[in-house]
Amino acid sequence: MITRASTWQRTSGGVTAPRGYLASGVHCGIKQRKRDLALVVSEAPASVAGVFTTNRVKAAPVLWCQEVVRRGVARAVVVNSGNANACTGERGWLDAREMAERTAAALGVAPEEVLVASTGVIGVPLPMDAVRRGIPLAAASLSRSGEEAAEAILTTDAFPKTSAVVTTVGGVQVTVGGMAKGAGMIHPRLATTLCFLTTDAYLPAPVLREALSRAVAESFNRITVDGDTSTNDTVLALANGRAGAPVVEGGEDLERFTQALTAVAQDLARMVVRDGEGAQRLVEVVVEGAADEQDAERAAFAIATSLLVKTMLHGGEPNWGRVVAAVGYSGAQVDERRVAVWFGDVQVVREGLGVEGVFDRAAAALRGEEVTVRVDLGLGPGRARVWTCDLGEEYVRINGSYIT
Amino acid sequence: MITRASTWQRTSGGVTAPRGYLASGVHCGIKQRKRDLALVVSEAPASVAGVFTTNRVKAAPVLWCQEVVRRGVARAVVVNSGNANACTGERGWLDAREMAERTAAALGVAPEEVLVASTGVIGVPLPMDAVRRGIPLAAASLSRSGEEAAEAILTTDAFPKTSAVVTTVGGVQVTVGGMAKGAGMIHPRLATTLCFLTTDAYLPAPVLREALSRAVAESFNRITVDGDTSTNDTVLALANGRAGAPVVEGGEDLERFTQALTAVAQDLARMVVRDGEGAQRLVEVVVEGAADEQDAERAAFAIATSLLVKTMLHGGEPNWGRVVAAVGYSGAQVDERRVAVWFGDVQVVREGLGVEGVFDRAAAALRGEEVTVRVDLGLGPGRARVWTCDLGEEYVRINGSYIT
Repeated sequence: MITRASTWQRTSGGVTAPRGYLASGVHCGIKQRKRDLALVVSEAPASVAGVFTTNRVKAAPVLWCQEVVRRGVARAVVVNSGNANACTGERGWLDAREMAERTAAALGVAPEEVLVASTGVIGVPLPMDAVRRGIPLAAASLSRSGEEAAEAILTTDAFPKTSAVVTTVGGVQVTVGGMAKGAGMIHPRLATTLCFLTTDAYLPAPVLREALSRAVAESFNRITVDGDTSTNDTVLALANGRAGAPVVEGGEDLERFTQALTAVAQDLARMVVRDGEGAQRLVEVVVEGAADEQDAERAAFAIATSLLVKTMLHGGEPNWGRVVAAVGYSGAQVDERRVAVWFGDVQVVREGLGVEGVFDRAAAALRGEEVTVRVDLGLGPGRARVWTCDLGEEYVRINGSYIT
Repeated sequence: MITRASTWQRTSGGVTAPRGYLASGVHCGIKQRKRDLALVVSEAPASVAGVFTTNRVKAAPVLWCQEVVRRGVARAVVVNSGNANACTGERGWLDAREMAERTAAALGVAPEEVLVASTGVIGVPLPMDAVRRGIPLAAASLSRSGEEAAEAILTTDAFPKTSAVVTTVGGVQVTVGGMAKGAGMIHPRLATTLCFLTTDAYLPAPVLREALSRAVAESFNRITVDGDTSTNDTVLALANGRAGAPVVEGGEDLERFTQALTAVAQDLARMVVRDGEGAQRLVEVVVEGAADEQDAERAAFAIATSLLVKTMLHGGEPNWGRVVAAVGYSGAQVDERRVAVWFGDVQVVREGLGVEGVFDRAAAALRGEEVTVRVDLGLGPGRARVWTCDLGEEYVRINGSYIT
């Protein structure tokens, strides 16, 4: 989808790039020093869609958002970092609701129109005193800049993640923007990816849901850092119609809009992977020639999550046997004698056997900041692409000892 | 099963502890210095059963063994370390067959009665000159000691792994012995667990198969180091009847025999996990109170393979949220409000919420050489136990850069 780039163009900014959105990010005291409370507000009621963690243990804000999304209309998103409000029981639910209520009061909207997201430590109640201080502060500092909001949702992330593109709907220019957090679920007790997408196009909630679900399938559902699914994963999309373009109901307009939304979601998803702590490389895994698409996905995810492959990518040494072994246990149909493997543009396996004399070139291909591992199973039309990162010692260090 | 210890007793030795087995281990030059060729011989034809990797890419020796096991009778096992003979195509198959043929010639038995196993580098042809030198050498140095064989099958293992127990069949004492290799599939391009079990009881091949399949279900199928399933995994059992006990066909005798076989297999499987490189701890994960046994297994394996849990265990810090999150995405039925978690004997979660004031005791419980993580889902009778190890920086170092 991202290859048909002609239907959209990158632009500057993040969640406030589309018309009619304001944002802010403040420090309220959940974290020691850094910004920890973000607010994104739509000037007009927006239709809303969401995709949430499949973890059966869902943080309180996820449960709250699911109710808002079911109604399909939202005005604002309030997000705190530093605490996930997960595994916090009845109290967690009351705290999430209070966050919505206080934000609604500060903005003069209904609590049922306020989305809530949290990221940080699991199992510790939210420090509500800080949150109560922060909400009016955030409401008072709303502006057309999304930068501070993009900072305030971070935890161990090394950099803020924003993206925006423009496309047209019925000949009228519309903008899609977004911000995300998530250094790959790799910080102690932090296990969250959050993504907030905005647009000044208007799509009725069910149509927005369809577009979001397609965009997520090609972005956040295609990345893996450590295979752990968090209790807080949340991707939200708001569409407020402020561009004045025709309502997107289907057809070519929906197609174009979905491509733009997918482009922003892919940008952000790739940034999340690239920011994996301990990781040096963004790795694209492509599986082609699988019996069908499901098989291609199985094989691609087996490669992308294999510790042996990920540590190999860290070291940058072309041990292709690990890639073939991962394909072999993925559940995908495999005929060993048809398998071909490339590291970058260097073919290392042909008809299931190692290609001689390419070790040094293959090693060089694995040592860039962006690496491609491509496998052709030689069986059928199935194709899938996922993104992962290498696994470094730093991952273990960060996740193994954060107190001592 | 292992808890009913009264039906069997530990004894000394390994694969040669049962009557009628000889073994040897020599250096033939596949590895630079260490022993790399092992031979185990039964003085009488033995019934044989095997359990093999489920990886669709199977090493040549696995394919060879599957044919031998189908016929049900074996006289010897020849094993090389240093090279997996996997992803080696037609040549790999010819090499595996030649290993069987040359061993058969040296012992005066039929090639179809010789089992072959290999472990080491994937994708590199076997150095057959070395193997041809080694086989007569190994045949000439057979003895009642299994120690050199147990050494010769190792790759990156820190120590040889042997175990033996005695039990009775129809009032007659029989012995079960075994050896295994596997430092957890964690060495570059090595990805293999091999286990060889011997007994002087006699079970017809189909009965032996049943006993082995039950023993493996409770041992090698209950361990995980890095979630990668190898191309070479092989567990073989030989039963030569040399104890003179009644043939084991079923009933109480089969039950007792299976318990003894399981005890040896569990000993060896736990040793494999304990030897995981970079690992400091053997971790037993117990899930109780699951809706059914499948759910208990799902939850236990999700915990045991979670990188966030395994790095936490490495650091020895009681971040129970990671355990609950793993259970949540395992696919098992979960009611967060019923979940209880213990680290060792310290309860850290009760009714889904953290227990206050136990951090230091919980941390202490995670810092031993043997650690138990127990989860009670509070839903039903399902129970499962698996073994894993912590994930340390050393794992990444070993697997990320072995050439440079």
